[in-house]
Amino acid sequence: MATSSLAPPEVPMELHAGNRDRLLTALRAHLSATASPPRGIALLQGGEEQTRHCTDHLELFRQESYFAYLFGVREPGFYGAIDIASGQSILFAPRLPPDYAVWMGEIKPLPYFKDRYKVDLVFYVDEIVQVLQDRFSQHGKPVLFLLYGKSTDSGNYSKPASFEGIEKFDTDLGTLHPILTECRVIKSEMELGLIQYANDVSSEAHIEVMRQAKPGMKEYQLESIFLHHSYRYGACRHCSYTCICATGENSSILHYGHTAAPNDRTLNDGDMALMDMGAEYNFYGSDITCSYPINGKFNSNQATVYNGCP
Amino acid sequence: MATSSLAPPEVPMELHAGNRDRLLTALRAHLSATASPPRGIALLQGGEEQTRHCTDHLELFRQESYFAYLFGVREPGFYGAIDIASGQSILFAPRLPPDYAVWMGEIKPLPYFKDRYKVDLVFYVDEIVQVLQDRFSQHGKPVLFLLYGKSTDSGNYSKPASFEGIEKFDTDLGTLHPILTECRVIKSEMELGLIQYANDVSSEAHIEVMRQAKPGMKEYQLESIFLHHSYRYGACRHCSYTCICATGENSSILHYGHTAAPNDRTLNDGDMALMDMGAEYNFYGSDITCSYPINGKFNSNQATVYNGCP
Repeated sequence: MATSSLAPPEVPMELHAGNRDRLLTALRAHLSATASPPRGIALLQGGEEQTRHCTDHLELFRQESYFAYLFGVREPGFYGAIDIASGQSILFAPRLPPDYAVWMGEIKPLPYFKDRYKVDLVFYVDEIVQVLQDRFSQHGKPVLFLLYGKSTDSGNYSKPASFEGIEKFDTDLGTLHPILTECRVIKSEMELGLIQYANDVSSEAHIEVMRQAKPGMKEYQLESIFLHHSYRYGACRHCSYTCICATGENSSILHYGHTAAPNDRTLNDGDMALMDMGAEYNFYGSDITCSYPINGKFNSNQATVYNGCP
Repeated sequence: MATSSLAPPEVPMELHAGNRDRLLTALRAHLSATASPPRGIALLQGGEEQTRHCTDHLELFRQESYFAYLFGVREPGFYGAIDIASGQSILFAPRLPPDYAVWMGEIKPLPYFKDRYKVDLVFYVDEIVQVLQDRFSQHGKPVLFLLYGKSTDSGNYSKPASFEGIEKFDTDLGTLHPILTECRVIKSEMELGLIQYANDVSSEAHIEVMRQAKPGMKEYQLESIFLHHSYRYGACRHCSYTCICATGENSSILHYGHTAAPNDRTLNDGDMALMDMGAEYNFYGSDITCSYPINGKFNSNQATVYNGCP
């Protein structure tokens, strides 16, 4: 029976407030350096829940990462804004239909989100235009700094926030993405704490996999053990990436484990395993790979190669 | 320690061939009844792999269900066709770039897919226009019957196949969807066998959850036990829907368990649990709900209500 010393930590919302502060500092410095007016709104759109193709099967929602970084909001359908001049943070929550309460759960009032996510102001999404015009137009039309830029990992572009009435504002697509991306590179102490925790969970889960692995099992059974240990004991519902549980020659495929190569080989006596799996906690991920013989004992060739790696 | 008597069955490709036969019979009957020419191509587009927002995080791909029903293809990026006159089945596989082999695994040659999925012909996706024109144009431009129609569960519309050059064909958007949807209602013996298996997996996993549930645990730990049992012992990587592990008053929310209500309550002594979870095996799903007291003993009120349900 697996045991665990893991204790899922509380996630302090000060972490995300700190992220917003770092963005504010960087944005203000940029506007100052380019002799631009020291105001405007950084506006991001959170992720939307998706159904599977035409069906009513809802995919388990996981927040878009830039939005999560700044606001920590786990629910779909939100927008978030930061007023550059005042530093105020504003969340816009979706206005849910009454039958949401029957199907999906209690409809939380706006003060719930204000308290939960420790932002300065909360409104409904359908109030964006009015709120931004009424509160932030003392210097004319506020400029909206939207998130648009290329991910150098994927080559894909982030989709800038859009909403009905956005044409009433001036928008800037070039400023926010590089600055916010740069902010995310240097982690705060609180972020490092969560990353450390995600790594602790994954380390324990890898050890549990190693304990249970033996010839005759299927690779996906090792994946299942990892996922279970991470979720049951670590409260990690998501992984950073699809589990790579490669044995034998599958270990030479960098991203083995996806649907077209789904961790379905049987483990043989004498196989080496390459386990590349990482749990994620509150949007902060781990990425751990380790390699060992399935039968628990290196043969001399395996030992030579293993010890040859620094 | 959990044990299991589950033995994941082989999936016979005759199952999907039988599904194609039923569609052919129904389509031919429809064309005959409407005095239409007894020919044309039923053409479906399979699902595409998706990245998470702008990142390179690939979501675990699960095939679109109509496509899976007819072809059983688990990989993304395929098209499938059925020639109504001859009954021939044709798969179009994506032409993968050479570096796929390094990142994702061996690039399978076309005969691999012909053999694996037991279809009559296999080509590359970029050959669709030529293949359909060359092989099926003896009666002029072949009509393509595309899948377009409303899901009465979700209100969403299925997206008809599209590809470069589709304008060279006549297309029919109204015929295929209602007929294919109707075909899927009546299950064959082989389909029933897989549905039974998915139910066997889920039943065993529910029992394992029931055995381990006790006050002080979190609802998500019960979800994790279910997922693990279904995957480790049942080879079910997917569930039919997000696990609903509701205790206490959460049991009154029909679709509890999603990201905004994520199975995160602590189980109390005296709670009733409502567990609504179902594993999926080769695209065939189960849907099982059961209700019991977390501490293993009904109190008299709980027993009255429980026994009052037929």
